[in-house]
Amino acid sequence: MLLEKLREEVLEANLCLVRKGLVLSTFGNVSGVSRELGMIVIKPSGVPYETMKLEDLVVTDLHGKVVEGALRPSSDLPTHVILYREFPSIGGVAHTHSEFATAWAQARKPIPCFGTTHADYFHGEIPLTGVLTESTIRNEYERNTGVAIVRAFRKKDPMAVPAVLVANHGPFAWGATAAEASENAWMLETAARMAYMTISINPHAKGIGKHLHDKHFLRKHGKQAYYGQSKHKK
Amino acid sequence: MLLEKLREEVLEANLCLVRKGLVLSTFGNVSGVSRELGMIVIKPSGVPYETMKLEDLVVTDLHGKVVEGALRPSSDLPTHVILYREFPSIGGVAHTHSEFATAWAQARKPIPCFGTTHADYFHGEIPLTGVLTESTIRNEYERNTGVAIVRAFRKKDPMAVPAVLVANHGPFAWGATAAEASENAWMLETAARMAYMTISINPHAKGIGKHLHDKHFLRKHGKQAYYGQSKHKK
Amino acid sequence: MLLEKLREEVLEANLCLVRKGLVLSTFGNVSGVSRELGMIVIKPSGVPYETMKLEDLVVTDLHGKVVEGALRPSSDLPTHVILYREFPSIGGVAHTHSEFATAWAQARKPIPCFGTTHADYFHGEIPLTGVLTESTIRNEYERNTGVAIVRAFRKKDPMAVPAVLVANHGPFAWGATAAEASENAWMLETAARMAYMTISINPHAKGIGKHLHDKHFLRKHGKQAYYGQSKHKK
Amino acid sequence: MLLEKLREEVLEANLCLVRKGLVLSTFGNVSGVSRELGMIVIKPSGVPYETMKLEDLVVTDLHGKVVEGALRPSSDLPTHVILYREFPSIGGVAHTHSEFATAWAQARKPIPCFGTTHADYFHGEIPLTGVLTESTIRNEYERNTGVAIVRAFRKKDPMAVPAVLVANHGPFAWGATAAEASENAWMLETAARMAYMTISINPHAKGIGKHLHDKHFLRKHGKQAYYGQSKHKK
Repeated sequence: MLLEKLREEVLEANLCLVRKGLVLSTFGNVSGVSRELGMIVIKPSGVPYETMKLEDLVVTDLHGKVVEGALRPSSDLPTHVILYREFPSIGGVAHTHSEFATAWAQARKPIPCFGTTHADYFHGEIPLTGVLTESTIRNEYERNTGVAIVRAFRKKDPMAVPAVLVANHGPFAWGATAAEASENAWMLETAARMAYMTISINPHAKGIGKHLHDKHFLRKHGKQAYYGQSKHKK
Repeated sequence: MLLEKLREEVLEANLCLVRKGLVLSTFGNVSGVSRELGMIVIKPSGVPYETMKLEDLVVTDLHGKVVEGALRPSSDLPTHVILYREFPSIGGVAHTHSEFATAWAQARKPIPCFGTTHADYFHGEIPLTGVLTESTIRNEYERNTGVAIVRAFRKKDPMAVPAVLVANHGPFAWGATAAEASENAWMLETAARMAYMTISINPHAKGIGKHLHDKHFLRKHGKQAYYGQSKHKK
Repeated sequence: MLLEKLREEVLEANLCLVRKGLVLSTFGNVSGVSRELGMIVIKPSGVPYETMKLEDLVVTDLHGKVVEGALRPSSDLPTHVILYREFPSIGGVAHTHSEFATAWAQARKPIPCFGTTHADYFHGEIPLTGVLTESTIRNEYERNTGVAIVRAFRKKDPMAVPAVLVANHGPFAWGATAAEASENAWMLETAARMAYMTISINPHAKGIGKHLHDKHFLRKHGKQAYYGQSKHKK
Repeated sequence: MLLEKLREEVLEANLCLVRKGLVLSTFGNVSGVSRELGMIVIKPSGVPYETMKLEDLVVTDLHGKVVEGALRPSSDLPTHVILYREFPSIGGVAHTHSEFATAWAQARKPIPCFGTTHADYFHGEIPLTGVLTESTIRNEYERNTGVAIVRAFRKKDPMAVPAVLVANHGPFAWGATAAEASENAWMLETAARMAYMTISINPHAKGIGKHLHDKHFLRKHGKQAYYGQSKHKK
């Protein structure tokens, strides 16, 4: 039952990437985890979104060992596994090659917080991972990508900044559920696009001030949040 | 009756933001005022546009006190209240995070008038508010946003330049009705996008000359306007 | 009969601007001329494209005097009139505020020919008019816009370069028919967008060489054209 | 039979260019080859994609001599002929004027590989041809375009980098089939767009490191590829 619901959520969250224009071709993948069941559900590798069905999704244990599904899981599965292990409060992970976030990752620049659109979702700049070394690329590349992400969050709360840029690759986002991970991937792209335009207009643009940043993040996510409806409150 | 019509106008003006691509997710809001009834109708906070219904709209008095509606009003309501109080000829207010106007706001640059597309709707540059101080952010932040907007118009006619950029946040636009506020938000985004491209092509681009600016604004909005049809004339 | 056909062509050419994304709101207008009948058919002023009908189009004589139609003609009619008088081989004129061409006009830069996409349609750079003086703006502004365009073509063949940028305003394009004028407005926007990107990538980009430019324009439009099908050949 | 299948593939691959937004108007063309039959199938010249039918496609021999079809073949046919002769493992060629790839061609800059999106499809930068001389433009221009492409691959494997930029013109892409050529044209545009954004954010951006580049290309295309499903594996 639980697993069936997770499959549906993960399928829907994957299709959401397509509807929001965050993925092309077979790029990208979303997974969700059930910590009670000890299971991860993830997109299969290299299958077109257009024809993907519930039964194509792959179910693995928390170490990434396939327990159900005829297809290979996304090749980025080991990255997801590390994130679930190291960020215990997350329930979903979304990886895209959305174009503006990817451009920042390719430019090897973290995305500064220039305004309240960014601050409403991310409490701080979007960090950039270090560049992987030759040996971490050759051996267990996808796992080491996860390690590099975790390292970028040594002094950050992954729930306050639920996204990262992997250098020369692209973004990963996460959240309490697969749906939230997809939504954060979308908002990351929005923030990335606006930040791109901001520095084009003013290369010396300064980030948003700390007080405005805190205000917007906390009026939506803090203990005394007053944005949205009580019943809808996340 | 009157209130019912206002509700319909405000719902339609909110949906117009979606159709023109000026808002994503639950960002943005439009309100309308009936000065006869002493009532404001505004979008509820954090409700998706896709499912918003007439009865979800919130009715308040001119001080922003809710008089009808089960949902919380948009958290930006206090900004709208100040604008209705200080700009007595406006009948609608639209707030968006449309991407190019927001980028100018994030870059903390007013939008120069570079051409007749801008001049047809806005008689002068689009001003930028000052940056809010720590204390105006901590206490009554949304109300103080309105105060900062009013301050930016100390020497300007809000009906001649019906839009503003709030620093590190995004645009507000207004007009004689909620529909006109939405239309001005759309035209602001158009002007913002073209101005962005203009300075990319020529960083030393000069604004439109005063005479051409006056000509275009006045042939459409002046006493001797001759653009459009007499019966359609605004 | 002839007039009815012209009306249909002009309506279709106006709607084409909308389908190609070259106009927003009520901006822009297309006209066509029948030199046999001595008549011009043009879009009415300030009427939304969505609801425009055949009978809304305005018929004038070659001096721009209305001879049929209940609505006012586009306020840019006097510009069209001058172009029909001075460029005797054209049969249609299209005016848009398409965003990249308008940005070049606002930046006051002619559009260099950087590649064969441009060269296939325009045999040389897209010229920029001079800036209108105070007195030419105050009196007969729209007529003087036409005069400024004609002046920019003193040493150019308007059929070899069927478009122009009016400084701080936007583009006009033309062709043998209203349909061709619309198509050239579309191709102008395409060339303008690609030229924008080209100088962003390489601010020192050089124009296409003369030989390649001639080759592409002439293989499509010259006496020995071999592009397209004989029966379709323009 | 075989020829009928090739026709269908070539029609579909041409329409794919339209669906992916890689061509406007009548620009662009895709062909496919059957080396068993010694035949090439190619789009006719200057025919709109919207109305193109199976029987409009033109069949030629390997020298480009028409053997079937009432219409003229694409004027770029001689370029395709050279590519089929010189690159013996390719089965399809796609030519577009897609906007970002064309902008790089107009800027006369090869497209550096800045990230894994590029590396997944192209094992190295996308090269730029030399500029054609006056005499190679005047005589057999389209054939000489093919010669310039082949020259740009003197030290490259056309299957590892299945695309090129023709200076001041636009991209050509190829692949094992017409469908793959179209897909590579699409991925080229994606890489071109992201590379454009990358250098806008950071004009000093460095390319992806060799190890990450190899890893991504080889996990998808190498002998030990593990991306995608075994049965779907290309």
